[in-house]
Amino acid sequence: MNALLTDLYELTMAAGYFESGKFAEKATFEFTIRRLPANRNYALAAGLPQVVDYLLNLSFAPDEIDYLRTLPQFARVSPAFFDYLRDFRFTGDLFAVPEGTPLFAGEPVLTLRAPVIEAQIPETYLLSGITFQTLIASKAARCVDAAAGRPIAEFGTRRAHTPEAGTLGARAAYIGGCAGTSNTLAGFRYGIPVMGTAAHSWVMSFPCEMDAFRKLQRVLGDSTVQLLDTYDTLEGARRAAKLGGPMWGVRLDSGDFDSLSRQVRAILDEAGLQHAKIMVSGDLDEYRIRQLVRDGAPIDAFGVGTQLATSADAPNMGAVYKLVEVEICGIKRFTAKYSDAKGSLPGAKQVFRDVARDVIARSGECGKGEALLRPILLGGRLIEPLPTLEQARARAARMIAALPDHLRQLEPGEPWPVIESRELRELIGQTRANVR
Amino acid sequence: MNALLTDLYELTMAAGYFESGKFAEKATFEFTIRRLPANRNYALAAGLPQVVDYLLNLSFAPDEIDYLRTLPQFARVSPAFFDYLRDFRFTGDLFAVPEGTPLFAGEPVLTLRAPVIEAQIPETYLLSGITFQTLIASKAARCVDAAAGRPIAEFGTRRAHTPEAGTLGARAAYIGGCAGTSNTLAGFRYGIPVMGTAAHSWVMSFPCEMDAFRKLQRVLGDSTVQLLDTYDTLEGARRAAKLGGPMWGVRLDSGDFDSLSRQVRAILDEAGLQHAKIMVSGDLDEYRIRQLVRDGAPIDAFGVGTQLATSADAPNMGAVYKLVEVEICGIKRFTAKYSDAKGSLPGAKQVFRDVARDVIARSGECGKGEALLRPILLGGRLIEPLPTLEQARARAARMIAALPDHLRQLEPGEPWPVIESRELRELIGQTRANVR
Repeated sequence: MNALLTDLYELTMAAGYFESGKFAEKATFEFTIRRLPANRNYALAAGLPQVVDYLLNLSFAPDEIDYLRTLPQFARVSPAFFDYLRDFRFTGDLFAVPEGTPLFAGEPVLTLRAPVIEAQIPETYLLSGITFQTLIASKAARCVDAAAGRPIAEFGTRRAHTPEAGTLGARAAYIGGCAGTSNTLAGFRYGIPVMGTAAHSWVMSFPCEMDAFRKLQRVLGDSTVQLLDTYDTLEGARRAAKLGGPMWGVRLDSGDFDSLSRQVRAILDEAGLQHAKIMVSGDLDEYRIRQLVRDGAPIDAFGVGTQLATSADAPNMGAVYKLVEVEICGIKRFTAKYSDAKGSLPGAKQVFRDVARDVIARSGECGKGEALLRPILLGGRLIEPLPTLEQARARAARMIAALPDHLRQLEPGEPWPVIESRELRELIGQTRANVR
Repeated sequence: MNALLTDLYELTMAAGYFESGKFAEKATFEFTIRRLPANRNYALAAGLPQVVDYLLNLSFAPDEIDYLRTLPQFARVSPAFFDYLRDFRFTGDLFAVPEGTPLFAGEPVLTLRAPVIEAQIPETYLLSGITFQTLIASKAARCVDAAAGRPIAEFGTRRAHTPEAGTLGARAAYIGGCAGTSNTLAGFRYGIPVMGTAAHSWVMSFPCEMDAFRKLQRVLGDSTVQLLDTYDTLEGARRAAKLGGPMWGVRLDSGDFDSLSRQVRAILDEAGLQHAKIMVSGDLDEYRIRQLVRDGAPIDAFGVGTQLATSADAPNMGAVYKLVEVEICGIKRFTAKYSDAKGSLPGAKQVFRDVARDVIARSGECGKGEALLRPILLGGRLIEPLPTLEQARARAARMIAALPDHLRQLEPGEPWPVIESRELRELIGQTRANVR
């Protein structure tokens, strides 16, 4: 039902593997972060459960197979291939880094080992699914660090690349440390705390602002957040102050947040509303948040939308899905790509994270520290429930806290040391010598 | 079933409207492009059918309503509101600019008029859905113009912000003039031509490159596109040339495309393969395409992925959904937002496109040229089938061709003149005077 959501060449290759008698060969593919996203010192892995769900449900519907038959690329393909597609399922093994793990350039995120057709078709979905959530989680972690303890609400679904991407982005942002999201479906589906009270249209729908504030408070009680900037922020603040509690606080969505937050704070304090909080939103990113925090603006919470939901300064990442091993009748052959800067390294791998460095080793090697890649699916079955979203979020917090300070700053820092094991280096040399 | 895919504040406002006795009030909201995306001279409207589909199916499932009841924000809301949600449907009117229309800063894309709760809840979905496809269609149109007649294949699903976004992005790119897509689901669902033959993994799965080329040709015949750069591009070209036809041609995915394409062309020609085409892909955008075309590189087709599928240089756009009218018992009140730079203009509008300028007028005014906003839904029903995807694509081609040259260049050009009608200017003045 979901197997057409892939690049056509995965399917023409599938036909080719089938027609070349290779369909029983086992292939191992590796998803690797070739380059970190721009401006990032690490990538925070996210998106695994959606990929697992995809693999567990991988199949073709009859009308999808009929569609493939109509394509000129499949004109020479034998009927047996389409029969094969009818019963097609994923029966292979998946090893992956847990969500919430910071990763560095050159490191594998997952390894997939299966009959070659089953390993080839998921490429497109895996690359997109993992890369997107990883981008958003990484951006969120930067915003959270910049806010220095003040909560960040993810407000970006309206700016995301489709509403569904907004929902998955909310999930990723929560792993990255956001306190919650405005996306209600993300709350329903993933149990993420949801936030939000009223927009400018609420205020505009009443003939007078005071009436709008009063009515909102009547409905929301101590969840009330009065939005101040529909007409004039300070005038709005005076009205909200006059109205008094109950309220959570107020929100500013435009203007000079540093100056306005101080003036609004004074107005609220003067009215005895010391407990009313100030939230700001509108065109925020990690750099603006850091500046406001450094300048001591009296802001209690940030809402971040556009920049977070589209990872605007780094909307993509150099990730690849490359064949690293082929196994025919139990005999392995290691594969790599050598052209130019876009090379890949042969063989299934493991990453060991020690206190001061990562070692990329061959799978099966012993190493010091935590082995990051873990078995997820064996023979097409989930071996144990995946960590919960809360566990992934806690892992992210713990592992980011363990990073050296210079990797948690917003500017590029000295990269975390990532080296190759001696065994891997030997394999690289051998494979290059054997090519062709 | 889809109504939770919205920001929570749309739903707390819905509760507020309900509790304030405003649920029968009619509201008119306008979706406006406040600022064009960075580096763009126009935005090419796309995404309407998905939004219409959303509105036609807007509803809450019982477990979704149960979820809302558990939220602290709804603790004070009366049971009647949740009963109301159970039967909630969209019963309003939608006016929209057809897909494939170039739009400019300040112009409305759609107007939605409905009982206020029905008009409020769709905000998040509409903003995300229309903005995303519009961004991709706009980027595609630039790539197509830069390629000066050579076809462009959209190859970006693996880089899109979720695989589903890749599928909708493929749709938008086709409206923008791309010749096809690698996304198979987009072909199945929307009838877009699909393209693709083999990846590096195909070549790597065989012990020798020549064998890989031969097997691919056997399966794909004259659809064959040999990928040359797995090991060494020119060596690959010599092998493909030796093998000869049938083939569509070859693809280069890395290296210096200008130099390599000339050398590969010579190798193919020398082997009598003058009809074999050369496609290039890998890190392309409209600027690199223009340069290759200007330099006369013998390239017949381009595959564009990352930069197109994420609209990487402009991954978001300043679009807003603002309340412009409220109607109580048949009496209209016009609304606007005045704070700072983020203002909005009152009243439902129409845009008239004449040969030399656009006039933003009040809806119901007469004007010269084409009226861009058309009725789509009336009373919650589709009044006629929407234009097909092919019609949208043809409209885009026709309307882009009618733009002055300086707006079709890649660099920022003198903006298309957009003025307000006298009646609209009068309304703006009156509304500002009446505020509060």
